[in-house]
Amino acid sequence: MAHLIIIGGSDAGISAALRAKECNPSARVTVLVADGFPNYSICGLPFFLSGEVPDWRTLAHRTIEEIEREGIHLRLNHRAIRIDFTSKLVTVMDHKQQSHHIEYDKLIIATGAASTKPPIEGLGLPGAFFLRWMGDAFAIEQYMTEHRPKSAAILGSGYISMEMADALTRRGISVTVLARSGSVLKTVDAEMGERIRSELRKHGVHVINQVAVTSIEQEGKGLVLKDGKEAILKAELVLVAAGARPDTELARSAGVSLGSNGAIRVSPAMETNVPDIYAAGDCVETRHRLYRGPAYLPLGTTAHKQGRIAGENAVGGRTEFEGSLGTQVVKIFDLVVARTGVRDQEAIREGFEPLTVESESWDHKAYYPGATKIRIRITGDLQTNRLLGGQIVGSYGAEVSKRIDVIAAALFNDMRVEDLNKLDLSYTPPLGSPWDPVQTAAQAWIKSKATDCSRIA
Amino acid sequence: MAHLIIIGGSDAGISAALRAKECNPSARVTVLVADGFPNYSICGLPFFLSGEVPDWRTLAHRTIEEIEREGIHLRLNHRAIRIDFTSKLVTVMDHKQQSHHIEYDKLIIATGAASTKPPIEGLGLPGAFFLRWMGDAFAIEQYMTEHRPKSAAILGSGYISMEMADALTRRGISVTVLARSGSVLKTVDAEMGERIRSELRKHGVHVINQVAVTSIEQEGKGLVLKDGKEAILKAELVLVAAGARPDTELARSAGVSLGSNGAIRVSPAMETNVPDIYAAGDCVETRHRLYRGPAYLPLGTTAHKQGRIAGENAVGGRTEFEGSLGTQVVKIFDLVVARTGVRDQEAIREGFEPLTVESESWDHKAYYPGATKIRIRITGDLQTNRLLGGQIVGSYGAEVSKRIDVIAAALFNDMRVEDLNKLDLSYTPPLGSPWDPVQTAAQAWIKSKATDCSRIA
Repeated sequence: MAHLIIIGGSDAGISAALRAKECNPSARVTVLVADGFPNYSICGLPFFLSGEVPDWRTLAHRTIEEIEREGIHLRLNHRAIRIDFTSKLVTVMDHKQQSHHIEYDKLIIATGAASTKPPIEGLGLPGAFFLRWMGDAFAIEQYMTEHRPKSAAILGSGYISMEMADALTRRGISVTVLARSGSVLKTVDAEMGERIRSELRKHGVHVINQVAVTSIEQEGKGLVLKDGKEAILKAELVLVAAGARPDTELARSAGVSLGSNGAIRVSPAMETNVPDIYAAGDCVETRHRLYRGPAYLPLGTTAHKQGRIAGENAVGGRTEFEGSLGTQVVKIFDLVVARTGVRDQEAIREGFEPLTVESESWDHKAYYPGATKIRIRITGDLQTNRLLGGQIVGSYGAEVSKRIDVIAAALFNDMRVEDLNKLDLSYTPPLGSPWDPVQTAAQAWIKSKATDCSRIA
Repeated sequence: MAHLIIIGGSDAGISAALRAKECNPSARVTVLVADGFPNYSICGLPFFLSGEVPDWRTLAHRTIEEIEREGIHLRLNHRAIRIDFTSKLVTVMDHKQQSHHIEYDKLIIATGAASTKPPIEGLGLPGAFFLRWMGDAFAIEQYMTEHRPKSAAILGSGYISMEMADALTRRGISVTVLARSGSVLKTVDAEMGERIRSELRKHGVHVINQVAVTSIEQEGKGLVLKDGKEAILKAELVLVAAGARPDTELARSAGVSLGSNGAIRVSPAMETNVPDIYAAGDCVETRHRLYRGPAYLPLGTTAHKQGRIAGENAVGGRTEFEGSLGTQVVKIFDLVVARTGVRDQEAIREGFEPLTVESESWDHKAYYPGATKIRIRITGDLQTNRLLGGQIVGSYGAEVSKRIDVIAAALFNDMRVEDLNKLDLSYTPPLGSPWDPVQTAAQAWIKSKATDCSRIA
């Protein structure tokens, strides 16, 4: 009976294990989980820390019992420390700090990503935190319970920063976001960042832009953030949310090839360069659906997809990952911000000639109560009219998330901007318009080109 | 300067006029509007009658001034009564009951649909109504204001019936829905109808199924609905919501060819068989995107699309309508029901071998507050796995409408059921799951087939 070992018990690892058992119930499947929390929804951590999710246990996609019921062997608090692909052995350090060797026939590396640690002195001080894994969240929660901080500084202005600004504000903490750039949430255009900034301001979150923190120092009860010798801000809690990098040291040392950003290079079947070793999730280089080249897009959705594919293929299947579009959505207080595809700069880099046009429309017919305005930016290629990407900002409840998904579905199918108008989308006055906002946004894009109408006599 | 005449001032007619002026500003465009309400959102009438939309004027997609500002000539209360395609003349009856002839170079027929009048005696009695146009709604509103009915019977159980059951209940009226069939909202499967029925029951709406009303009789203050001699129900207001039929008598008498259901037969460019006469909207036979055959699907969304195409082509453009999928959504109290594509029976008729699988999932991660369960039915072809249709029922706020749109976008692109899993959809715990419900529904469909996994060794 072939033995499949999976290193990593988060989204990609457990998806792989479940799919392997589903496709080949006789396969022996063991998952090495570095901590005690397999299959936890780490995307949910900000909502635990905000108090919206009172019990962290509910963050589990599945319980340990549910996973084991599928015939999957979980080894909790077992960290893989070495892979020997010649002898097909994984060396594991268990919770008692004892090492073991386990033989594999097939191996899936799903070690995920780690928080980026920027070159700032004092990151190890009490009260300074990262947020990625369950342990990080427990540490923050314990600190908040014990010290009741009244102020917090968040370094970085990406998704986790935005969610944590919301979360800590809900806990009654005064939050300041410090961004190196001139905008917030740089994964969307600066025009959308402005709307986010005003939402943050509305809820009392301060934003300081174009600031570089070089050190954190203890001062009395608080931590002082400094740029060189200059003190920028004092806060009782500091969260460093500077992004994520693929956790691939184990893979690299085992002879697995990495891509330029340090992520594992995989084939569409999720195979690495080493025979019988697959990889999936936040530790791998993704293939971009749009430009068919490599990208690093660590997202839970992609991890689930890739894990499923790696699991199926590791037990004899033949299926391929068809690429990412970087579709993302975040809720920030009462605002929802979503994006998919590429924006101008990335498009130019990939050889397109992008045009981005922004338009505004009601989320549903204005006469029906509760209508709010949503703003959509459509990016298309001027040469071919090919749809390249979309960005949407609107209120929570305005179906922003599923509207970006319509654009993502169009992108997946290589549609042109004007093709969005052809989609037969649903309509009822309380939920939309005869032309969905996505379609009026496409019309605004087309209109801004000289060649709007078809050959007019 | 060429003269484009458009007969009909609702969705298709005004869309055609706007697009014609947009593509060819020098075109002379005249719209003949049978009533005084051009470009009104008649889909919004139930929400006016419910009281949710206090001012009927807000139902206008655009005001008369806004339309005229585009250089479009509106002739209100002008009903076209004859078309002479040899002399290119339209005979019009104006509001003073005087007739005129107007010459056209190009003509667009956008006469819409009319309420189906079932063979029931007494449909003309005071207190018995249809609902399609503004005038119908004003008549109902006036009757409700003057007579304050306490009970209402709605004949039929389609979209308008469901919306009006909701609307009249909000007005404090006790509503009974009488359906000829054994289910309600027959545009979705009976399994979904059950959920709708329980929502109706929850809000005090009675449903009587498998009943045939043959006559309506006045009895004191009320109207008695009878099946032969047997009285079924007494109500103070009766709404006959038996569907819509294309309003094509004018077109037919002018020599325009009709399809089997009495709707105008058009080319993908929206041309009729008569030179220089186009048609669009609820009066035309639609082309089904999925099976590439004719269908009658009178929907505002389609009317807008077809009107835009007819308007562009009438002034010299060359663009084509790419087909309907029958995507529809309706809000019934706190429930949203949506569908797209075909269901089993229609699929079989078109030569497919359909399988429909229902599954249930949370609209977003269950740990985040406010999660509700949505039910999705996926229909696919057993031979090819081609996606054929989808149906969703869920709570208002569960993004049901835009989720059906993701399926509609997939259908438009001829995707297979398993391709839904490949879509890079957005995720954040308050708004979704790493696999969107649409994707877990696709997985449930695939799982129910023996050939779930790819070639496993």
